[in-house]
Amino acid sequence: MSSPVGLHRVVTPAGVLPQAAQRLDASGPIATDEVRITVERLNLDAASFHQLRSAHDGDGDAVRAAVLAIINERGKMQNPVTGSGGMLIGTVDEVGPDSPLGLKPGDRVATLVSLTLTPLQITDGLADWDGLSEQVPAKGWAVLFGRSIAAVLPDDLPAETALAVFDVCGAPALTDRIVRRYTSADGRSASSRAAPTVAVLGGAGKSGSLSLAAAARAGARTVGIVPNEREQQLLQSVGIADHVALADARDPVALAEAVTAALGGPADVTVVCVDVPGCEHGAILATAEGGTVIFFSMATSFPAAALGAEGLAADVTMLIGNGYLPGHADFALEIFRAVPGVRELFAVRAAR
Amino acid sequence: MSSPVGLHRVVTPAGVLPQAAQRLDASGPIATDEVRITVERLNLDAASFHQLRSAHDGDGDAVRAAVLAIINERGKMQNPVTGSGGMLIGTVDEVGPDSPLGLKPGDRVATLVSLTLTPLQITDGLADWDGLSEQVPAKGWAVLFGRSIAAVLPDDLPAETALAVFDVCGAPALTDRIVRRYTSADGRSASSRAAPTVAVLGGAGKSGSLSLAAAARAGARTVGIVPNEREQQLLQSVGIADHVALADARDPVALAEAVTAALGGPADVTVVCVDVPGCEHGAILATAEGGTVIFFSMATSFPAAALGAEGLAADVTMLIGNGYLPGHADFALEIFRAVPGVRELFAVRAAR
Repeated sequence: MSSPVGLHRVVTPAGVLPQAAQRLDASGPIATDEVRITVERLNLDAASFHQLRSAHDGDGDAVRAAVLAIINERGKMQNPVTGSGGMLIGTVDEVGPDSPLGLKPGDRVATLVSLTLTPLQITDGLADWDGLSEQVPAKGWAVLFGRSIAAVLPDDLPAETALAVFDVCGAPALTDRIVRRYTSADGRSASSRAAPTVAVLGGAGKSGSLSLAAAARAGARTVGIVPNEREQQLLQSVGIADHVALADARDPVALAEAVTAALGGPADVTVVCVDVPGCEHGAILATAEGGTVIFFSMATSFPAAALGAEGLAADVTMLIGNGYLPGHADFALEIFRAVPGVRELFAVRAAR
Repeated sequence: MSSPVGLHRVVTPAGVLPQAAQRLDASGPIATDEVRITVERLNLDAASFHQLRSAHDGDGDAVRAAVLAIINERGKMQNPVTGSGGMLIGTVDEVGPDSPLGLKPGDRVATLVSLTLTPLQITDGLADWDGLSEQVPAKGWAVLFGRSIAAVLPDDLPAETALAVFDVCGAPALTDRIVRRYTSADGRSASSRAAPTVAVLGGAGKSGSLSLAAAARAGARTVGIVPNEREQQLLQSVGIADHVALADARDPVALAEAVTAALGGPADVTVVCVDVPGCEHGAILATAEGGTVIFFSMATSFPAAALGAEGLAADVTMLIGNGYLPGHADFALEIFRAVPGVRELFAVRAAR
């Protein structure tokens, strides 16, 4: 009897969920509610790749060997240091008769659940990967459980592009949901007849740019915060934020001043999309009383956020950014197609 | 010129907020918007005290020396391992003419901002403390900034009791606010004419019992989850939960089964009040689609929660428990006074 959350694939330790497992069973035969995917490409989580690259001094061969060793030992790609994984792209090979995912053999898909819980076996030694990029050409297979998420790749976009959008698609969807609470009948801003204000830390990044565009579509006035002049020029040139401001998100006082100067006051919603530690207090200090901070950065420290809000006597709602909302993949693709500035920004980042 | 958040008291590193500082200036003269408190007692954060006790094998003298060394070196009580502090009780000694806190000399108060950001100097070497309890009799002084929180101690309760209530007063206040969203006109539960359901992990603890009582007052049907038979008997005997269930909160599958069995389905709101790592996935799995998880445990891992929800394809809102909401101290005292079972439970825990 297979479990919709994959309990039957956990080897060690017994009884935990696949993500918490040290080792998964990635063998090929599938249960009646599972789907087997022929892998084409892995997209490693940015934090994971950066950790591996710096641990191996940028030596691509050593990074490749490290990734292979992790997958062979764990039956999944989960960086033991960062705890993070990534996602993959491939073609549906076999669909169990009881699978609820609506996929059929031959569909080219991206998995929208993390590699940290996806049974994975590599058969080509990652021979086509130089170890120098997050995008990993790969041969092998992966298994999806009953309760899992995979999106069929769109025809109008390159697979790499769609994958890059899917990788961060939770951020614009949750930003949209939260901003609309501040524009709805019960929101403070609606009653005061002013658009809600949104600050996005790391606005020139992938999740940041999609979040800025989502906030604007939901009716917000926005500021994108960037850490240096290059990002500042980039974000200004693509025109997806009402304001662009330069500030170190790790410096609470400087960040709060930059946001307040741009928006005329602290933000109703602050979205944290920068993958560096120490942005919690700045995000809280930059947010208005009754406002919301959405933390999407995996570098977020739970105690720093909780104690920071208390220490600043700040009545702000703090959300742990959930990578899943129903319809999040389609929503992100819709924004990507509709907003030229977001596409330009993704193209620039991909070219770097 | 003093800063309402205490920037002028930060010695190292320069420019950070007091909580992030390695060292604060705890000297006695106060700025015009500050308040100086004569300290009577510190209440160490549970996680901090347990870490110190276990690091020193339960040797009270060594624990006392360690706490003294931290305060002397840092100008505040912030455990460098756990990052947490606690709170204090004392008497208002001097009030700057521009202080907005509404205190006057002679008021007996508890500080409701963390010791991790409160300038503190100890003058008696903690001579009256045996190092074996979180409650630390102490002589010395502490400083409150303009934007800070202190509550005048009530006349009808012992100071130690009020302090224990204040220490966790954010939990019942936020639980109340969230549960009422599920009982309001727009909530799913109200439209289906059923009371929202709430699971509290660690229901027999201080924050847990207050949260259970707050949930019940807000109209919820509740289950308190406890880790062993002693806690189970205790929680059942005080009668503050509709159901009491035994489960290891670190075991997602067992926890979700226990909650579902007690409530007839997953919970609308799950409140995590157990200070052990690894409860994130269980809390998510025990929560209904569209539900909310409130994490109050400082042992919560941000990545485990974020990746867990994604991996389980769970559309749940995940909140970082904020220790501050306006009126939280009075709200917690009100529940404490009104619910005999909560008082009994606090008394039993204090006697242990």
